[in-house]
Amino acid sequence: MNTARRRAPLPSDRPARPRVVIVGAGFGGLSVVRHLGGAPLDVLVLDRNNYHGFWPLLYQVGTAGLEPEAIAYPVRAILRRYPNVDFRMCTVTGVDFAARQVQIAGATIPYDYLVLAAGSANNYFGNPTLAAHTYSLKDLNDAKRLRNRILSAFEQAVSEPDPTRQQTLLTFAIVGGGPTGVELAGALAELIHQVLRKDYPTLDTDRARVVLVEATDRILVAFPDRLQRSALRRLAQLRVKVLRNTAVESVGAGVVTFKNGRRLAAGTVVWAAGIRGATLLDGLGLELGRGARLKVLPTLDVAGQPAVFAIGDMVYLAGYQGDSPYPQVAPVAIQQGQQVAANIQARLTGRPLRPFRYFDKGSMATIGRRAAVFAAFGIQLSGVIAWYGWLVVHLMSLVGFRNRLVVLTNWTYNYFTYDRGVRLISGGPE
Amino acid sequence: MNTARRRAPLPSDRPARPRVVIVGAGFGGLSVVRHLGGAPLDVLVLDRNNYHGFWPLLYQVGTAGLEPEAIAYPVRAILRRYPNVDFRMCTVTGVDFAARQVQIAGATIPYDYLVLAAGSANNYFGNPTLAAHTYSLKDLNDAKRLRNRILSAFEQAVSEPDPTRQQTLLTFAIVGGGPTGVELAGALAELIHQVLRKDYPTLDTDRARVVLVEATDRILVAFPDRLQRSALRRLAQLRVKVLRNTAVESVGAGVVTFKNGRRLAAGTVVWAAGIRGATLLDGLGLELGRGARLKVLPTLDVAGQPAVFAIGDMVYLAGYQGDSPYPQVAPVAIQQGQQVAANIQARLTGRPLRPFRYFDKGSMATIGRRAAVFAAFGIQLSGVIAWYGWLVVHLMSLVGFRNRLVVLTNWTYNYFTYDRGVRLISGGPE
Repeated sequence: MNTARRRAPLPSDRPARPRVVIVGAGFGGLSVVRHLGGAPLDVLVLDRNNYHGFWPLLYQVGTAGLEPEAIAYPVRAILRRYPNVDFRMCTVTGVDFAARQVQIAGATIPYDYLVLAAGSANNYFGNPTLAAHTYSLKDLNDAKRLRNRILSAFEQAVSEPDPTRQQTLLTFAIVGGGPTGVELAGALAELIHQVLRKDYPTLDTDRARVVLVEATDRILVAFPDRLQRSALRRLAQLRVKVLRNTAVESVGAGVVTFKNGRRLAAGTVVWAAGIRGATLLDGLGLELGRGARLKVLPTLDVAGQPAVFAIGDMVYLAGYQGDSPYPQVAPVAIQQGQQVAANIQARLTGRPLRPFRYFDKGSMATIGRRAAVFAAFGIQLSGVIAWYGWLVVHLMSLVGFRNRLVVLTNWTYNYFTYDRGVRLISGGPE
Repeated sequence: MNTARRRAPLPSDRPARPRVVIVGAGFGGLSVVRHLGGAPLDVLVLDRNNYHGFWPLLYQVGTAGLEPEAIAYPVRAILRRYPNVDFRMCTVTGVDFAARQVQIAGATIPYDYLVLAAGSANNYFGNPTLAAHTYSLKDLNDAKRLRNRILSAFEQAVSEPDPTRQQTLLTFAIVGGGPTGVELAGALAELIHQVLRKDYPTLDTDRARVVLVEATDRILVAFPDRLQRSALRRLAQLRVKVLRNTAVESVGAGVVTFKNGRRLAAGTVVWAAGIRGATLLDGLGLELGRGARLKVLPTLDVAGQPAVFAIGDMVYLAGYQGDSPYPQVAPVAIQQGQQVAANIQARLTGRPLRPFRYFDKGSMATIGRRAAVFAAFGIQLSGVIAWYGWLVVHLMSLVGFRNRLVVLTNWTYNYFTYDRGVRLISGGPE
């Protein structure tokens, strides 16, 4: 039955065809795969998880709008169609550039070309209190922890006799006014005032507060002024309190201290105020730019390392809207992946590499039910039309027909019932 | 805005109306609620989780067919429609029958009537090696652990150079030939031979073995002989090896030792060979019957404790098909819940209690795609018609429209694609 099956490659094998090793199965890594599938190369994808996560919808998992499985898709299912592509679930601990080997626990994996596409990590700017006392939204585990925490806070609050402690439990601070912070704040306010309000008839949920904290004077800085104001109005309608010009000094158990000396008693603090290149970069000995991001040449290879390419959130490359670094968003990673696939094939055949060129499709963010902002090609949209656009773009970008159906089912259900079906505290109380 | 909202009840409050405390939000507990909603009573439901789980489909979560959220529904969402019913998420640690108080961490909850509906736990028959080295299928955490384990075993096997260790990783022993064991064995064999086979083209998945171990000479003992034979044939078609008359002596890391002296190297062992009453019973000082189940009177109250009722899996009550104990299945718990609701109201109004009478709707079990067995009212069905019946009954029994849609979406997708979309290893490698 298995006559056509391939032999398992052992870690020590060096394949006859050039081998491309891709670290990371995110938007960038999978874009490289898509453009190298069928090429005369062996491709090996490494990721610490066995799934590809659709992180633009992660805030909906964190606020009980979607189940984790709806926004994740098995990597092996995506790779099935490419006979020259294999996968291995493992954590990369280092790279020996001289020997052209990737190091994983207990083994090394040789490569001819390496693509680093390991994404980003939270940037706590060297402040250990932030890492210790805040929640975040970088992966499915983070989102599940946040969901558990929000729902547990209400379960604790309903039987908390002390009003001060109850108010702290019902106060949620979200630090960072970028798309993640804004979308999370809107979804959390809707969860509280539309859904949990009905779940806790004996609790005065009007006392619950969602506070969005931003160090600068503006939220959604990548959007035009008009849309920033539109987002602020929408957040106010949703009863989100926005604190601008307010930088965080430290976070303790149940309290945020700001640089202006004020304090906020908040039982739950979410850190969405900064990301950096994946921590894998720290041990590689390569030159990092701002935000601990790897500096690459415009052709997306690393200076002095002709076999090493890097793309996506972990990369620092200037050239966006003049001399800014390209933003850490999925379209940049996807388009850089395509360019790296072309440049690896150019290197194989002796053709010159070509620099990365970005086609900017614009930015969009949603702020609760029937409201979003969209800016692209000189067009600025807000309100319900932008929201429909947001829904369609995100639904069609999901990998896998099943996931699209499950997400559509949830969105339809949540929209018409003002309910969220997945508000489970998994793994029992904290 | 909140003028009509009730004040939060404090643990020390004693309500003016009689208070019924129900321990457990499973099939039994919620059945009591349904029949006491609107009665002149205050009802408080306690559960360690904030959701009601539909455990008949748990094996599909364990084999990556359904996401955990598809078979769980928030208790508070179910209770919203009953203004006299409240909920508290907590773990009950004991009961003071003299003071009529339920004990939870740091507080006590007074009751006038108590309904124990806390379900069952795994029965390891005093063998600590079983608890230490086996997986089980009693709740969502168990199912997620099993799913992670099955998928991790394949990820490890694909890069395992030693053939013996690889064979152990690819051997799955399921102990117990009841409905849980049989349904799990069928679903696991399909996952391996239809889905994972395509995920691991470099691995000879024909070497993977699912072994169903049963101590007696028959599987599905509650079913007629003809359907038992039908199930055995179906399992053989799915390449499940059934070992009958084979009792387990002990389980170690990667090995099962049988009472007949033989051993089986199996990297994953699932214990589905016995349940007992919930462990809460151990500290209550009440009389327990076989399987550590609480003995109750035919009226479902506890002898000598007129305020205490008990129902469902945790109860031992003879009278089924002569003098057998009622089986630990959902319909028994649901019907006992209805009787307890009536008997509590009878006690309130001074009417006599009535004994439990069971209307047996029959038994069904599914064994992979397009095959099931069904026995009720003298009718015996097997094959595709029984399978359709199984699908409809389980889909309609799920709580919540969203969950029905998500389950239907998954079933349709899995059926037509021979795929399982939720095969994620959550929380990273083990």
